[in-house]
Amino acid sequence: MIKKLAIIGVGLIGGSLALALKKAGYVEHVSAFSRREETRRQALELGIADSVGLNLAETVKDASIVLLAVPMGAMESTFDELAPHITNDMIVTDAGSAKQQLVTMAKSAFKDRFKQYVPGHPIAGTEKSGPSAAFADLYQNHRVVLTPTDATCANAVETVRKMWQVVGAEVLEMEAQHHDVVLAATSHLPHLLAFNLVGMLAKGSDVEEVLRYAAGGFRDFSRIASSDPVMWRDICLSNSEAILELLTQYQHDLSQLEKAIREQDAYYLQSVFEQAKSARDNRFNEPGLVDNSEV
Amino acid sequence: MIKKLAIIGVGLIGGSLALALKKAGYVEHVSAFSRREETRRQALELGIADSVGLNLAETVKDASIVLLAVPMGAMESTFDELAPHITNDMIVTDAGSAKQQLVTMAKSAFKDRFKQYVPGHPIAGTEKSGPSAAFADLYQNHRVVLTPTDATCANAVETVRKMWQVVGAEVLEMEAQHHDVVLAATSHLPHLLAFNLVGMLAKGSDVEEVLRYAAGGFRDFSRIASSDPVMWRDICLSNSEAILELLTQYQHDLSQLEKAIREQDAYYLQSVFEQAKSARDNRFNEPGLVDNSEV
Repeated sequence: MIKKLAIIGVGLIGGSLALALKKAGYVEHVSAFSRREETRRQALELGIADSVGLNLAETVKDASIVLLAVPMGAMESTFDELAPHITNDMIVTDAGSAKQQLVTMAKSAFKDRFKQYVPGHPIAGTEKSGPSAAFADLYQNHRVVLTPTDATCANAVETVRKMWQVVGAEVLEMEAQHHDVVLAATSHLPHLLAFNLVGMLAKGSDVEEVLRYAAGGFRDFSRIASSDPVMWRDICLSNSEAILELLTQYQHDLSQLEKAIREQDAYYLQSVFEQAKSARDNRFNEPGLVDNSEV
Repeated sequence: MIKKLAIIGVGLIGGSLALALKKAGYVEHVSAFSRREETRRQALELGIADSVGLNLAETVKDASIVLLAVPMGAMESTFDELAPHITNDMIVTDAGSAKQQLVTMAKSAFKDRFKQYVPGHPIAGTEKSGPSAAFADLYQNHRVVLTPTDATCANAVETVRKMWQVVGAEVLEMEAQHHDVVLAATSHLPHLLAFNLVGMLAKGSDVEEVLRYAAGGFRDFSRIASSDPVMWRDICLSNSEAILELLTQYQHDLSQLEKAIREQDAYYLQSVFEQAKSARDNRFNEPGLVDNSEV
């Protein structure tokens, strides 16, 4: 049971966690903070928060767990602002989509309180955002990755693990660097490719017609290109190293496909497409794989 | 009412048309041809065909409409084989995904019978293929594009238009060249990008884990990368001109995004993502847009 959970940045991610913990009867009091008055009001009205603070210090007072769910670009300043208010028993965790950079920032901001910080990433979400998009079942059968360091207090990790398990998530641990590479491959790069395609077509003079004839392939791309631009800007900037490495490889492979099309190399095209189909059909589509519908 | 419809290449596309026309009571007899005995047997068993021919000539005998639904790579030889058997009243149409090349091939193969050929493309399908994947409702609320030339007989166009309308499709006409550009943008390029991503990840040593953590962005990509490799190989080869033009632009834009990530250019990233989101939300997601679930 969590006595007081403080949520800094109360949107889809933090809001859904609060609703789920309340539904499970696992939290006594949720306090929430947002810079925007409208968001604070919504958090109260939607039953996400029992109280809202007008500043971060007030919000986290006496909290047993503090969840930082602000956009990636606001994490560093939030770490700095939170640091003086972390007390002995307080556990700090976050929901940021790239972990290495946050670990470095937290180390620098929290100093000897760093051991109380459990870096986390719930692999869940929709293309919608804000507290009104929150719902209690968001984390059911989704994965949450924790990336504790050697310095992280084991009890803090267990407490955060338990919190996510209570709301139905499967909790895994891995190195921050490894997390960032895996997420770059499975989420960050796909989003970048989709934004690039839809952005390119949006510049064309026949955009209306192109969109009218959009079939399955494009429909799937366009859905993820509807995700929050600021959030994805921040993810690209935060996880740039892993994204750039994969992007370089992607561009190389795409040039090979381009060359094959130009030279009408049927054999090469078919072999690439077959490898892709086989990887997808045999490995991705395994029974028991949960529907992690979004990051 | 169609007296006899001959389907050359009886898979998802031809099979679904036959089932839909039968359901509508709009066809008296469907004859089907496939090089594979197993496929011919299935076409009979599934009620797609009333008869199967052991060769193309036998199958199209006395047919009022001949639908060519073989893979793009088999179209040219099928045109050549069909040419001597096209009689005065026979209308020939097809379901190929790229039209310019087929028009050129048909002109050369059919000669003075070319006016009886109505190039067509039903924008429908699933990632599954074969007669067992066929179902009568496939074309409901989907678009079918016809790309007649100046030489095409107007009556033939009307007959083919009516056939597709009977099975619930919205039928449109455009130039073959324009069709190919629009489809390259909305379907062919997206498939290529998806195959390239899944193919790249399939080469990695940590493919199992990457696929295990696959979230929404990747899930959408991977579904379309599960499409038939031979069909997509043929589409890439047949519509290479339009695909290559768009691919060049795509690679250019992707390099700009790469540069922006490398230089941590938040403004550029955000503006591209916002343009994409805005195009998608405002134009693509219009009410009344039908779900063209696949090409």
